Amino acid sequence: MFQVDLNCDMGESFGAYDLGNDEAVLNFITSANIACGFHAGDPSVMNKTAALALDKGVAVGAHVGFQDLVGFGRRNMDISPREAYDITVYQIGALYGFVKAQGGKLNHVKPHGAMYNMAAKDRNLSEAIAEAVYKVEPELILFGLSGSELIKAGKRIGLKVANEVFADRTYTDEGALTPRKEKNALIQNTDEAINQVIRMVREGKVTSLNGKEVDIKADTICIHGDGRNALVFAENINDKLKRNGITIKSGNSI
Amino acid sequence: MFQVDLNCDMGESFGAYDLGNDEAVLNFITSANIACGFHAGDPSVMNKTAALALDKGVAVGAHVGFQDLVGFGRRNMDISPREAYDITVYQIGALYGFVKAQGGKLNHVKPHGAMYNMAAKDRNLSEAIAEAVYKVEPELILFGLSGSELIKAGKRIGLKVANEVFADRTYTDEGALTPRKEKNALIQNTDEAINQVIRMVREGKVTSLNGKEVDIKADTICIHGDGRNALVFAENINDKLKRNGITIKSGNSI
Amino acid sequence: MFQVDLNCDMGESFGAYDLGNDEAVLNFITSANIACGFHAGDPSVMNKTAALALDKGVAVGAHVGFQDLVGFGRRNMDISPREAYDITVYQIGALYGFVKAQGGKLNHVKPHGAMYNMAAKDRNLSEAIAEAVYKVEPELILFGLSGSELIKAGKRIGLKVANEVFADRTYTDEGALTPRKEKNALIQNTDEAINQVIRMVREGKVTSLNGKEVDIKADTICIHGDGRNALVFAENINDKLKRNGITIKSGNSI
Amino acid sequence: MFQVDLNCDMGESFGAYDLGNDEAVLNFITSANIACGFHAGDPSVMNKTAALALDKGVAVGAHVGFQDLVGFGRRNMDISPREAYDITVYQIGALYGFVKAQGGKLNHVKPHGAMYNMAAKDRNLSEAIAEAVYKVEPELILFGLSGSELIKAGKRIGLKVANEVFADRTYTDEGALTPRKEKNALIQNTDEAINQVIRMVREGKVTSLNGKEVDIKADTICIHGDGRNALVFAENINDKLKRNGITIKSGNSI
Repeated sequence: MFQVDLNCDMGESFGAYDLGNDEAVLNFITSANIACGFHAGDPSVMNKTAALALDKGVAVGAHVGFQDLVGFGRRNMDISPREAYDITVYQIGALYGFVKAQGGKLNHVKPHGAMYNMAAKDRNLSEAIAEAVYKVEPELILFGLSGSELIKAGKRIGLKVANEVFADRTYTDEGALTPRKEKNALIQNTDEAINQVIRMVREGKVTSLNGKEVDIKADTICIHGDGRNALVFAENINDKLKRNGITIKSGNSI
Repeated sequence: MFQVDLNCDMGESFGAYDLGNDEAVLNFITSANIACGFHAGDPSVMNKTAALALDKGVAVGAHVGFQDLVGFGRRNMDISPREAYDITVYQIGALYGFVKAQGGKLNHVKPHGAMYNMAAKDRNLSEAIAEAVYKVEPELILFGLSGSELIKAGKRIGLKVANEVFADRTYTDEGALTPRKEKNALIQNTDEAINQVIRMVREGKVTSLNGKEVDIKADTICIHGDGRNALVFAENINDKLKRNGITIKSGNSI
Repeated sequence: MFQVDLNCDMGESFGAYDLGNDEAVLNFITSANIACGFHAGDPSVMNKTAALALDKGVAVGAHVGFQDLVGFGRRNMDISPREAYDITVYQIGALYGFVKAQGGKLNHVKPHGAMYNMAAKDRNLSEAIAEAVYKVEPELILFGLSGSELIKAGKRIGLKVANEVFADRTYTDEGALTPRKEKNALIQNTDEAINQVIRMVREGKVTSLNGKEVDIKADTICIHGDGRNALVFAENINDKLKRNGITIKSGNSI
Repeated sequence: MFQVDLNCDMGESFGAYDLGNDEAVLNFITSANIACGFHAGDPSVMNKTAALALDKGVAVGAHVGFQDLVGFGRRNMDISPREAYDITVYQIGALYGFVKAQGGKLNHVKPHGAMYNMAAKDRNLSEAIAEAVYKVEPELILFGLSGSELIKAGKRIGLKVANEVFADRTYTDEGALTPRKEKNALIQNTDEAINQVIRMVREGKVTSLNGKEVDIKADTICIHGDGRNALVFAENINDKLKRNGITIKSGNSI
């Protein structure tokens, strides 16, 4: 009856630098967002990560970001909608090459870091990204912050979209994420985090930091693949969702 | 009866840096090799160049190179066949994104600079490149130095290949290009250059620097898009080929 | 009696990409701002450009920018003061290597593009840049937009500063540059441009777009090294300043 | 009576990517070779690593490499001596900026990876690197493979040089390192590795894989900072050298 997609950013290693527990995390998720060489990842990492995901039957998506490797794509950059379109097409295409070479299918696109956050609020930027996705392949699912400008832009152009929620983040009265720099932005308690997403999925509600009931759409849940407890959390949330009668599957979109 | 393809490297501008006369040269060629952001080019340049080529009915190919922007991909790098495979898939995919977004078709792949020269002689490297092209799309045509290891690798794996010759370069007794560092490597006289390629196309022969008759296969002729006389030469060779009863068309391959 | 410095951004070529008329422009200026490989330039271009400048007795400065080659350092990036400090030290040091290897002296530092514009208004960013310059070498002159936060930060920390004005830009009532996106931001008429800077130097005044008299300090004038008329303009402004009794010399600072 | 320097490559983290145990390893070495942003490292990592080393009284050197971040500078590149000169000056200068900003002194220069290996055998490349070091600062010590072309080039131009040996590598009859791809290239046993270097330092001899006694000069010993046992090995070798009457100090050169 209830269903949700579980996604994780991966393929973030680069050259001699290893990051994340991709292979293990893939056992507990249904969608893998693979970095495309701009904010993280490189051609060899992309090839290997796409192979791992396809092998485990996990849906593969392009995790497109700003060309800022040293900043891991987390620094806002004042790029034009035209540039956003161009870097989105480029990165989707690059990952598509590996997926096609392996006989697989590209499932979705999710902007990363600063690009994700800026697109959540900026209509022009969002439309450029959505248009890029649509033009490359109208069947791709666009992942964006639940209820954000990016989700709206995706719908307007005719894409399937997946409203993304975060297990370990608190929400404002407006249904936005509490900014990371504020205290209480993160939910430290695992059970609390998992209960929050279960309620999002089953009831479409989240309780804001101020205690207000806020409507929220949860098509896909983002979990993190690095950090000490990533793997334990991935297994834990996967297990709890199922035990609460929620089917975990990719392709969950509206 | 006789036919040949006329190709030119383009899309080599980068950010604020302009290079070449792409728009004008496109009037005289049938295949455009577009740089893919590794040795030259960037996403915005790729988008624009692909649009120009498709608009003029010129076949679009991926000009894949080493990740060495400051060296323009002209410096030999000791990369493994695995890395060659990965960077080839990545770059083909990236350009494919733009071509597909514009409703076009990707026609061919040609390695650039040091990658082209190394692949001409290195069987392992050639096989990795050919496999990358084949895996992404078996209908793509692989461009390589006429008679080189890359051409052989392409044939072995089942790709269509295009033997490339150069109008303005002299040849050795073995049918190889005279190395650039040797004197007489370049043909300075335009008529001489054009006559050489006409004979290559019509008779399958070239006279080496030593005066020896050498067999050579000419499916496609490479002309250069930058430099003072590029445009004049492009127009000139296009005109002379036609007047000598040679049809200029893309897709010429074996 | 009156004196001013004439500076130009240069060393902006990169690899196979040529930009500007550095060698010729150096005949008419007294300070060269050399790109340091982040927004433009590369080690070989830096070496060559520093040699040209030192050979002609032109003062050499580090033109430090954001690490955004494809955007030519012109896109705002949300970097922390700490990062601004680090990239400033790095780039000054890199250029210092070439200057010292050639037996020369490093004279000044000027942020480029978006970094220059952001520093003009952002006190924290300016202080980080000024501290970086001071820590590397307290004798360096810091160039910044006349009257800007960067000039103030430089003074506070104990650096010599050079208030920079632009010949070909119009000014607001507050003494700021009219933003480029507004019409009338640029002065198209050469005589008008030159007369504006002569008055800035001799009277310390500029007439704003609205016709208001505004105080402005002009220690150094920025001219552009690329574009069709760059060279003619450089020669012209150099000549007119001298004929108006203004000595052109580097090291002009307060 | 006997003395040797103990050096380790460090500052190899980049952006979000952590590598090595720099802070801990610094307790057991006397010279730190800090990556300069070409093969590894970034301005912020350089700043932090230089501060750590200076704080612990460890000599700071520039670990200069090829501009090949994705290959970690380990892939041979066919660069010209002129380019080698330019990238060496650039990287030394960049690190010098941080060292000078912290009131410290730059002690040495060591090429990294492929640049190190190529310079060991290539006289032209070695002379370009040695000249770059000398021109920037003739007091710098040049580290190179013991007895290599780089050491010879350094001596010819008038630099102090440090012959580098490796604790965990076996040697050929010619006193060269057994290539990594051959079996027995690495010494797996810690005691054996340490005994080898002790003998190198005290007797100037090493036993080749074939059992031949070979003369070798050991001014400085390279230990590795990453890998599981790096820290244990660093502490171990430091301790054993001292117990064998060998003073560990930087600046050991001829």
